[in-house]
Amino acid sequence: MIEKGLLIVLSGPSGVGKGTVRKEIFSQENTRFEYSISMTTRAPREGEVDGVDYFFKSREEFEELIKQGKLLEYAEYVGNYYGTPVDYVRETLEKGRDVFLEIEVQGAKQVREKFPDGLFIFLAPPSLGELQNRIVTRGTESEELIRNRMNAAKAEIEMMDLYDYVVENNKVEIACEKVNSIVQAEHCRRERVEKRYKKMLEVE
Amino acid sequence: MIEKGLLIVLSGPSGVGKGTVRKEIFSQENTRFEYSISMTTRAPREGEVDGVDYFFKSREEFEELIKQGKLLEYAEYVGNYYGTPVDYVRETLEKGRDVFLEIEVQGAKQVREKFPDGLFIFLAPPSLGELQNRIVTRGTESEELIRNRMNAAKAEIEMMDLYDYVVENNKVEIACEKVNSIVQAEHCRRERVEKRYKKMLEVE
Repeated sequence: MIEKGLLIVLSGPSGVGKGTVRKEIFSQENTRFEYSISMTTRAPREGEVDGVDYFFKSREEFEELIKQGKLLEYAEYVGNYYGTPVDYVRETLEKGRDVFLEIEVQGAKQVREKFPDGLFIFLAPPSLGELQNRIVTRGTESEELIRNRMNAAKAEIEMMDLYDYVVENNKVEIACEKVNSIVQAEHCRRERVEKRYKKMLEVE
Repeated sequence: MIEKGLLIVLSGPSGVGKGTVRKEIFSQENTRFEYSISMTTRAPREGEVDGVDYFFKSREEFEELIKQGKLLEYAEYVGNYYGTPVDYVRETLEKGRDVFLEIEVQGAKQVREKFPDGLFIFLAPPSLGELQNRIVTRGTESEELIRNRMNAAKAEIEMMDLYDYVVENNKVEIACEKVNSIVQAEHCRRERVEKRYKKMLEVE
């Protein structure tokens, strides 16, 4: 019997740098978990590649997949759908591999309901002011969009309660190190190890 | 108001390599926790230094400290007392520094009762056979002492239930890395961060 993999969920306010942290983690050679690529109806940003950063879909395609129950979670956010294809997640966990999701907070809430044992990490901005700077600096969004994002972010920070861990994104390298530590620590949790370990001792 | 430090307790069966792991951790430059030196009535092994490895005390001195309530925990183990001076631990935690204890399992149980929020890490042998090898290889103990140790170890492994985390001591470097990850992860736990973080946001 293969022990199931761990579902790792990285989420947090829009603009906090979830994508950057995720990319940094998966650029490291020793990363031992699998990235579940999200699906979205928003337009690709410069440099984003279909099937790498996201699966880019039309609104019609996305709504069809919702109907078919093919999404573990989905959310409409600033006018676009974001979601996680369910089959890949379940199959990979069954193989005993850890799966890493980088998703919006609305989606994380849905995943928590379906996977209460998942590992939920909230990526937090050093401050809301800092968060605003980052969104403005990105420079690709209108002022109205920025205001909407800020209001959404304030609400999202209130959602921290849902998570097991909070990682402040001051420096991306440190944030990545903390995420890796959290995953490694979680694999050492007594409840997870105990059963396997005691069985090993019985065999002798 | 200073946030209290974290009490980290590393324990596990005799002979599993607690001392080696502890020394490796404290030889690393980036270790940010304070080591609480244990007190014992056993004779120093070769190379052990009073006030560095242990505070070596006579039986009479030790029993006097027990009477005065100066020990956070103590245990009699294979005919010798082992214990943790309480004042150093409390003062260091109050300063907001993490304190690291490396103690026997009997002692860890007592600490758990007094510090239920502590971080309890069980250092586990890859197998009981491997444990026996290590005790024999150490080569400084009689056969009877080894048998006693093995029986004690089997009983101690049953005590894993008391701990938050289990780290298998296959390779000392990996065990150290895991202990460090566990401490870093624990500092990111939502319950710990949340209060401080929400206050920070209110200030703006």
